[in-house]
Amino acid sequence: MRNTFGRVFAITTFGESHGKGLGVIIDGCPAGVEIDEDFIRSEMQRRKPGQSKITTQRKEEDEFQILSGVFEGKSTGTPISIVILNTDQKSKDYSHIADKFRPSHADYTYHHKFGVRDYRGGGRSSARETAARVAAGAVAKLMLRSFGVTVQAYVSQAGPIKLEKHYSELDLTLTERNIVRCPDPELAEKMIAYIDEIRKDRDTVGGVVSCVAAGVPPGLGEPVFDRLHAALGHAMLSINAVKGFEYGSGFEGVQMRGSEHNDAFYKEGDRIRTRTNHSGGIQGGISNGEDIYFRVAFKPVATIMQDQESVNEAGESTVVSGKGRHDPCVVPRAVPIVEAMCALVLADFLLLNRLSKL
Amino acid sequence: MRNTFGRVFAITTFGESHGKGLGVIIDGCPAGVEIDEDFIRSEMQRRKPGQSKITTQRKEEDEFQILSGVFEGKSTGTPISIVILNTDQKSKDYSHIADKFRPSHADYTYHHKFGVRDYRGGGRSSARETAARVAAGAVAKLMLRSFGVTVQAYVSQAGPIKLEKHYSELDLTLTERNIVRCPDPELAEKMIAYIDEIRKDRDTVGGVVSCVAAGVPPGLGEPVFDRLHAALGHAMLSINAVKGFEYGSGFEGVQMRGSEHNDAFYKEGDRIRTRTNHSGGIQGGISNGEDIYFRVAFKPVATIMQDQESVNEAGESTVVSGKGRHDPCVVPRAVPIVEAMCALVLADFLLLNRLSKL
Amino acid sequence: MRNTFGRVFAITTFGESHGKGLGVIIDGCPAGVEIDEDFIRSEMQRRKPGQSKITTQRKEEDEFQILSGVFEGKSTGTPISIVILNTDQKSKDYSHIADKFRPSHADYTYHHKFGVRDYRGGGRSSARETAARVAAGAVAKLMLRSFGVTVQAYVSQAGPIKLEKHYSELDLTLTERNIVRCPDPELAEKMIAYIDEIRKDRDTVGGVVSCVAAGVPPGLGEPVFDRLHAALGHAMLSINAVKGFEYGSGFEGVQMRGSEHNDAFYKEGDRIRTRTNHSGGIQGGISNGEDIYFRVAFKPVATIMQDQESVNEAGESTVVSGKGRHDPCVVPRAVPIVEAMCALVLADFLLLNRLSKL
Amino acid sequence: MRNTFGRVFAITTFGESHGKGLGVIIDGCPAGVEIDEDFIRSEMQRRKPGQSKITTQRKEEDEFQILSGVFEGKSTGTPISIVILNTDQKSKDYSHIADKFRPSHADYTYHHKFGVRDYRGGGRSSARETAARVAAGAVAKLMLRSFGVTVQAYVSQAGPIKLEKHYSELDLTLTERNIVRCPDPELAEKMIAYIDEIRKDRDTVGGVVSCVAAGVPPGLGEPVFDRLHAALGHAMLSINAVKGFEYGSGFEGVQMRGSEHNDAFYKEGDRIRTRTNHSGGIQGGISNGEDIYFRVAFKPVATIMQDQESVNEAGESTVVSGKGRHDPCVVPRAVPIVEAMCALVLADFLLLNRLSKL
Repeated sequence: MRNTFGRVFAITTFGESHGKGLGVIIDGCPAGVEIDEDFIRSEMQRRKPGQSKITTQRKEEDEFQILSGVFEGKSTGTPISIVILNTDQKSKDYSHIADKFRPSHADYTYHHKFGVRDYRGGGRSSARETAARVAAGAVAKLMLRSFGVTVQAYVSQAGPIKLEKHYSELDLTLTERNIVRCPDPELAEKMIAYIDEIRKDRDTVGGVVSCVAAGVPPGLGEPVFDRLHAALGHAMLSINAVKGFEYGSGFEGVQMRGSEHNDAFYKEGDRIRTRTNHSGGIQGGISNGEDIYFRVAFKPVATIMQDQESVNEAGESTVVSGKGRHDPCVVPRAVPIVEAMCALVLADFLLLNRLSKL
Repeated sequence: MRNTFGRVFAITTFGESHGKGLGVIIDGCPAGVEIDEDFIRSEMQRRKPGQSKITTQRKEEDEFQILSGVFEGKSTGTPISIVILNTDQKSKDYSHIADKFRPSHADYTYHHKFGVRDYRGGGRSSARETAARVAAGAVAKLMLRSFGVTVQAYVSQAGPIKLEKHYSELDLTLTERNIVRCPDPELAEKMIAYIDEIRKDRDTVGGVVSCVAAGVPPGLGEPVFDRLHAALGHAMLSINAVKGFEYGSGFEGVQMRGSEHNDAFYKEGDRIRTRTNHSGGIQGGISNGEDIYFRVAFKPVATIMQDQESVNEAGESTVVSGKGRHDPCVVPRAVPIVEAMCALVLADFLLLNRLSKL
Repeated sequence: MRNTFGRVFAITTFGESHGKGLGVIIDGCPAGVEIDEDFIRSEMQRRKPGQSKITTQRKEEDEFQILSGVFEGKSTGTPISIVILNTDQKSKDYSHIADKFRPSHADYTYHHKFGVRDYRGGGRSSARETAARVAAGAVAKLMLRSFGVTVQAYVSQAGPIKLEKHYSELDLTLTERNIVRCPDPELAEKMIAYIDEIRKDRDTVGGVVSCVAAGVPPGLGEPVFDRLHAALGHAMLSINAVKGFEYGSGFEGVQMRGSEHNDAFYKEGDRIRTRTNHSGGIQGGISNGEDIYFRVAFKPVATIMQDQESVNEAGESTVVSGKGRHDPCVVPRAVPIVEAMCALVLADFLLLNRLSKL
Repeated sequence: MRNTFGRVFAITTFGESHGKGLGVIIDGCPAGVEIDEDFIRSEMQRRKPGQSKITTQRKEEDEFQILSGVFEGKSTGTPISIVILNTDQKSKDYSHIADKFRPSHADYTYHHKFGVRDYRGGGRSSARETAARVAAGAVAKLMLRSFGVTVQAYVSQAGPIKLEKHYSELDLTLTERNIVRCPDPELAEKMIAYIDEIRKDRDTVGGVVSCVAAGVPPGLGEPVFDRLHAALGHAMLSINAVKGFEYGSGFEGVQMRGSEHNDAFYKEGDRIRTRTNHSGGIQGGISNGEDIYFRVAFKPVATIMQDQESVNEAGESTVVSGKGRHDPCVVPRAVPIVEAMCALVLADFLLLNRLSKL
């Protein structure tokens, strides 16, 4: 198990879906960051279940407590611990899946790897773990504020419905105005209708979250292995249900010629800038001062309200039946998670860059 | 700078394109691995420049020496160091680019981050660094042999020419039979012709490398942050020119419904298997025993034989002119690099998995 | 800040003396360890304040909760989180020291390093943090049980009163029979009387804790930098108030000649053993199967009930007056802390050693 | 194996005593450090064998090459690799010890751990590995220069002959004036005579190296686990033959009372200082601006020119006979090694401290 992410602004998450609680330790947040608990709470609201008709109807209050690392409203440089108690851990009946492997879930692989697993609600493999990431990401965002760095994600695809516009053509302040978190209001309506239909079919569908980080200074990234985009990719691929990551021109860019793809340099006032930004703000693994942008693919949620073929721990054929309340499409609630992980990476690399020169 | 990759089978690479030498330290290779120098040499041959008309015509012999960690043909558990001296470091004239920032290269970002850079051939940011990775990856492959794990990559797209077939429909033994390393002989011819044309245009183009790992036992992966695919993504995105990574159903899979996408479990003899493999052999971040497969997007090579707008260190407008011998398309030579990084990740996680249970 | 210890059996502690709570995350405990909460509780009782007349009279109940990582009494391979809420954080008056630097405490250095500090009870620098280590160490001991490894520490010196006997001449089962935790009952009485006298003088004194690990298999240790004794030394020197560490023949051994000091090998049944054990069970940084033993020096507690010269944050001369309830000598309560850190190191290295051979 | 030391100024050493070569990669040296090769060479001269009649008469030239990371005389922020080829690896006859375990050497433990070992000259466990550390330490010293930090070690005990004076009473510029590296000229003579006598007895003896770091700014140290002295202790205990470490008042200090031991604060000009320095310049694990000082115990060298009882790989009784040229006492040559490891720790923590505050 490897539950720590980050080299100097490092988080360690813990907790199972239906255990007593979960949370995160942030070790390496510098002293002096204003810790605005209301902001953390508002970020967690964006992720929590039960927000709208297109998310799961489960209720989780996600009340958190900061146990350490903050004194008189500011970080002290010591570990910040944030704990979320699972108030609602009533002993639901899990006997119907306790010894079955749900298809495309982590049941079989955890069982094989550890010989034991907490089967309640997916245990450690549940996306509930991301609540801790969002809390930590909110702290990272509070630190990034001091540097003028902002991170904004949005839904750019839900199933086959795809936002073709480039982020620079969008008004990202509209993202939070609709329940699917797509900044194009018209397309948002279509996505909502589509997801709702999927939900009624007792099925699920995938989607794509796009993310833009602005105000990132040049110099962030630690080649050759911790190129900035490699760390961002690692962060995104560590989120439940993610199947792909691309930045800048991404997979589409492979068809371009170098002469179109290269970003010409020019001087704008004091800044060295590029005329295009196929590089996605990262060159040689290091930020160049332009906007960083990337896309993250999420698979359809594995829990469906249908019967599925499977086997149990004894290796016998069985059927897994859908039960409970689940998301028909994960991307609306994934938006704050993608932002959180992006903010954590940028906070880490902002600090690391202080070590580059004598 | 972060030049170490891997947690227990860890490599550290060093060296610049035109310095005295480069190489790699492998720390954590278990004792008892047969170190077949001929195999390492043959892997390095696959990467080296000057192989064919569609790669750079530069000559680099890549003769290596193992300085430590091997005794009587076997690894001893101590660090294996492999050094490649740059025999041909004749003082070429770099004055035409010494103070200019080549578009979409790492010149500007390194200069900004470190205040100083070795401008000869790109210095540390040169893809020459991957020679060290291929050497280390060959050692990882030698270890994987003992576990029956194989790793095979191939070119699945060059510019717009795309291999639509699934890897399971291909005969991967054909990959090395043509200079573009595409296992579909007909398409290979088209790719070669296309790349050659691009080369004549003094331009470059991108491509995609696909990779399959077979024989991987269930249990590899260290959630929540070091999910197996997150480590693979990190590894791939750390390779020069990579812009995207997807595994299993990837970006395409987002359009699928959960009911199609889920991989039903069944029993085949003693093994628990899945009827489909949209999961790409990884569930919950842990291998499930099916084939692991993924795709890696490479951008068009930044060095083109054309004049480009840029600025110099003083911030003045300037023109960068193409010179020298470079690859029109990087993917044929990227195949062994992708395999090497994949093998390194698998070796690392095979060892880590020994720690899962009491 | 660096609040993580261990490479694969890794702990991260958090929490301040007078904040809302403190605790520890254990990441890397293998699945299948029986987690006996009563045992953890009994270990914490050995450390807690208010045990006897020669320890501080402060009351701290140290009630802990395991929030995650354990299912049906066994570790699951996911992070084990243990939280201790500070029930008694009544707003004591700290105004008398809030801006003063207590001599030989961490007040000045934390203030300088972070620009801010939680001055209540020493904040993060308080020895209260070791409660979390003892909890984690108890889990490590539970794992070590399965391997037949035991760890026993005892007080071998309190101020000038020194136990001259070698550990092999002592009956270590007597250690817990007296309040100073010295296995020599007569000397224990002397130590107790001495410490009580020091306490009445409103002063403090230092001491030495010795520790023996038995049943450690050969092969533990990761040279060249993570020699077993280097990790043990690091662990011990990370405990509050520790000033020195020696193992085997230690500082005394420097006067010996090689011909006396060398431990001759012989065969005893199936085992290769040494006739003497000046090596302290460790050769070349790796355990050799003999008992591991070492000694840890603790300075006199810095908090004394006397007036002391100092300066305040403004740099003005001031006087710090002793107040509150503190230990006259730290070693009796340090015994379980030394054991805990030793157990954590051994658990880590037992796992790491699984990676040595193919 | 764990061959990397340091968190951000990190070194990885490699190489065996009688392999093709050894060396070190420094990853994390900031850009802009002037790399004075003559200084590195002079440091290596201080460690190399054959310096005087009281060191081994073996000849090793220790000619090194810097392969990367330096451009136009300065570090570039990329990995600095230093390689020392073993020019004199003539195939000596090792058959007399190839399958025998030399007492108090690492032969048995390496054999047990790895199942294989390079028995030539101790292989990886040879103190020859420290040549790489001295080279890296020289680079760390060059960086420390810019911060006004100096590190000076000296021999304070050889066998029973002990320098009782405190470092502040000594003229440390005299250290290098005699072959035993003791700054007290009279005592140096006695030590030399004593060691020479031991040598004639075909025996060996231990000793103590003391070390002082001056000019260290306040704020260095990363509690709770990477307290500055814990990292120094780890560093020292990772050196071959070290059996103990103490700093400040050390083991002697345990007998003191808190009222004597505490270091009162006062103001001297702009600086906050302490009237005494029992803390050894470190409080709460963080430097306070006073001199840092510590002592390191070295055991008698295990190789003696006498017959010793042992067993071989087959578990049969055997006799190991002394042969070859070895040091009668390791401390004179250990002085630059202690300094190197101290400099590496300080360089690492100077950089880490840049991360403490917003």
